Amino acid sequence: MSASAVTIAQDLIRCPSVTPAEGGALASLEALLGSAGFSVSRVTFQDEDTPDVENLFATIGSGAPHFVFAGHTDVVPAGDENDWNHGPFEGVIDGGMLYGRGAADMKGGVAAFAAAALDYVADKGADFGGTISFLITGDEEGPAVNGTVKLLDWAKDQGHRFDACIVGEPTNPERLGDAIKVGRRGSLSGTITVQGVQGHAAYPHLADNPIPGLVRLLAALDALTLDDGNERFQPSNLEIVSVDTGNPAFNVIPARCEARFNIRYNDEWTLASLKAKITETLEAVDLGNLSLDLEFKRDASESFLTRDETLIKALSDAVAAETGRTPELSTGGGTSDARFIKNFCPVVEFGLVGQTMHKVDECVAVADIDRLKAIYGRFLDSYFSGANNI
Amino acid sequence: MSASAVTIAQDLIRCPSVTPAEGGALASLEALLGSAGFSVSRVTFQDEDTPDVENLFATIGSGAPHFVFAGHTDVVPAGDENDWNHGPFEGVIDGGMLYGRGAADMKGGVAAFAAAALDYVADKGADFGGTISFLITGDEEGPAVNGTVKLLDWAKDQGHRFDACIVGEPTNPERLGDAIKVGRRGSLSGTITVQGVQGHAAYPHLADNPIPGLVRLLAALDALTLDDGNERFQPSNLEIVSVDTGNPAFNVIPARCEARFNIRYNDEWTLASLKAKITETLEAVDLGNLSLDLEFKRDASESFLTRDETLIKALSDAVAAETGRTPELSTGGGTSDARFIKNFCPVVEFGLVGQTMHKVDECVAVADIDRLKAIYGRFLDSYFSGANNI
Ligand SMILES: [Zn+2]
Ligand SMILES: [Zn+2]
Repeated sequence: MSASAVTIAQDLIRCPSVTPAEGGALASLEALLGSAGFSVSRVTFQDEDTPDVENLFATIGSGAPHFVFAGHTDVVPAGDENDWNHGPFEGVIDGGMLYGRGAADMKGGVAAFAAAALDYVADKGADFGGTISFLITGDEEGPAVNGTVKLLDWAKDQGHRFDACIVGEPTNPERLGDAIKVGRRGSLSGTITVQGVQGHAAYPHLADNPIPGLVRLLAALDALTLDDGNERFQPSNLEIVSVDTGNPAFNVIPARCEARFNIRYNDEWTLASLKAKITETLEAVDLGNLSLDLEFKRDASESFLTRDETLIKALSDAVAAETGRTPELSTGGGTSDARFIKNFCPVVEFGLVGQTMHKVDECVAVADIDRLKAIYGRFLDSYFSGANNI
Repeated sequence: MSASAVTIAQDLIRCPSVTPAEGGALASLEALLGSAGFSVSRVTFQDEDTPDVENLFATIGSGAPHFVFAGHTDVVPAGDENDWNHGPFEGVIDGGMLYGRGAADMKGGVAAFAAAALDYVADKGADFGGTISFLITGDEEGPAVNGTVKLLDWAKDQGHRFDACIVGEPTNPERLGDAIKVGRRGSLSGTITVQGVQGHAAYPHLADNPIPGLVRLLAALDALTLDDGNERFQPSNLEIVSVDTGNPAFNVIPARCEARFNIRYNDEWTLASLKAKITETLEAVDLGNLSLDLEFKRDASESFLTRDETLIKALSDAVAAETGRTPELSTGGGTSDARFIKNFCPVVEFGLVGQTMHKVDECVAVADIDRLKAIYGRFLDSYFSGANNI
C-alpha cells in the first residue's frame, strides 16, 4: 500500500509545532518512520539564551551512497486564528487545497519526502544498496541555534557521512516545477556609527554634527554597484535598513548617530572580500574630525553554489518528468538551513509552492503534494540506480 | 545710600527658584521695589500641560518715555550639588567671584538693573519725567508659555506702552563690554518623513526602501548655502538634528524613516521665504515612488534686528564709558524673551559674562556686577535726559 503524503501532511499540520514547540510533529514522524524499519533518534539541543529544541534523525540502509532529506516541522505563529478561513492547525482540505500553518513551509514537503522514501523502501527493501536518512529540525523558524547546525554535528559524531541532500523548502514562486535552489546568496550585516561632538543648534561652531558625515557615508554605500550578478546569481544588493539618532530635542546637535545595513551577496564575493570592500568604501569618505566605527554582525553567512551536476540533473529531470517544466536553477531568496548542510555535502532545495508561506490561510494544492512525492520518488530511483551504475 | 547690586544678587541666589518655582525671588524683588515707591504687581499665568508660573511687573513714574528692564529670576537646575565647590543657592563670594546658580543667568543682571533703577529714582525722584518698569518672569528657562509673552499682553491690557527695553541676559562671551545683542536669528524646525514600502531585505524588488531617498534629501539640505550672512548677522545655518527609523531587524526594509532639522536664520529670510526655500529644495530631489512629507514645527520664530539707533547708542556709550571697550553689536546665540518683546518696542540685550551659565560653579566677578549697575545707571541718565532734550 502506497503511503499517502497528503494524510501525513494533515497529521503534521494538526500538531501545533510553533517554534520551539515539538507539538507532536516529531513523535508522529518517529512512529511513521519507525514502523517502516527506519532507525529513529530524537535529540534535544540546548544553548544559552535560547529555548531547548527537539530534533529527529532517521536512517535506513547501510550502503553507499548516503542520501539525506532535510527539513523542519516547526512553523511560524498563526497570528490571530480568527483571520483564517480554515483553522491553522486543522489540516482542512477545501476545493483541492490543503490549508494550515506549515502546509507549504514545510510540513507538506516533509510529508512528501517521507512518503516517497517509505514507498521506495517498501518497494526495494531496506537493503536496497544505499542509505536514506532524514534530518528534521524543530528550530528552522527560530534562532536556528539548536537545530540543523547541531544535528549535522551530532550525525557526524554518530559516523554518518552524507553524499547528497535535498531540502524540502518551498522553492517554487508560483507553480510546482518553477525552481530548484542550487545555492544561496550570503548575508552580511553591519552597523556604522559616526561620533561627533554634541552641542546646541544655535552654536554649531562649538559642536560637530555627525549626521552630515553619516549621510555622506550612506550616499557612498548607496552609490556602490557591488557586481552585475552572473549566470547563477542575481546582483549583490545592499540595503540600509535603519538610521537612528534618538535625539528628541530640535535644538541639540547629537553626539552620535548610527546606521545599519544588510547585504545579500553572490559568489563574486567572499565574506572577507566583501567586508574589505565595504570598509574601503566607507574609509574613502571625508569625515573631517568625525570618527567612524564599522562593526560587522557575527551572524554573517557565506554565499554558496552547489556544483554537483549529478545531483542537480537527477532532481531536475524528475521535476521535468512530473511537471512538464524545466525548473530554473535559482539562487534567490532568503537563507535556509542549506547554508549549514553545504559544509557536509552537496545540497539542493526543492519543495512546494511558497506563495502563501508565513501568511494567513497558508495552503498548497493537494495535487502538488502528490506530485512532489512522485518527484522525490523518481529522484530516489534515479539517484540510487545511477549511483549503482557508475 | 546707594543700593548694593551685589547684596541683591546674593539675596536672589539664596532663593531656590528653579523653574517653575518662585523660590522667594519675586517676593524679595517685590519688597525691594515696593519700599522704594514702585507699584508692584504679582501675576500668575497658567496654561494647559504646563505648570502655573508667577511673574512680576513693577513700575514707577508716569511720563514719557516709558523704559522697561526685562529679565527672569528662574534658573536651570543645579544638577548634583556635590559637584559644586560653593553651594548653588548660597551666594558665596570667594576670590572676588560671586558663586551660585543664576549668578550670570541672570540674577546678577536683575540685581544690577534693580539697583541702578533704585539709585536713579532715589536721585531724581519718582516724578523724574519718564517711566521705568520691570518685566520679571519665572518662566524663561522653562516652556516660556506662562512668562514674558503673557506678561507683555497683561501689561498692555493695563495700559502700559513701552518705548524701549533692555533685557539683562548675559550677552558677553568673555569680558564685560564684549557685546550688546541687537537682534536675534530666527529659528525654524521641521520633520521630513519619507514613506516607502516595507519588505524583506532578501527581496528588495518587492519593497521600496525609503532610506536612500531620505539620504538624498539630507544631502540636498546639507549642500544648501542659505546665505553668507551680512553686517549684523552670521550666515544662516541648518542642522539635521536627528534621523530615525526605529527598525530593529537587519533583514527588514523599513516602510518609513524621518529626519528632523533646525535652522537658525538671519534677516535675509522671512519665515515664509525660508519655508519656501526648504520646500523647493526637497521637492527638487528625485524620490522615484517614495513619498515625502515635510512638516514645519509651529514654534518657529522670526529673525529680528533692532534699528533704534538712539537706544543702541545710549547703551553702547554707557558700556564704553564704564568698560573702556566698544561692544560688538551682535545677533548671535540662542533665542531669548527678546523675541517676544520686539513685538512691543525696540529691545536690546546686555548683561554679565555668560561663560559659566547653566554650568556647575556658575559665577560672575563681583566687580562686574557693580560695573553693570553703573552701565545701566549711565544708560538711564543718558536715555531720559536725551529723550527730554529732544
Ligand atoms: Zn521553511
Ligand atoms: Zn537667561
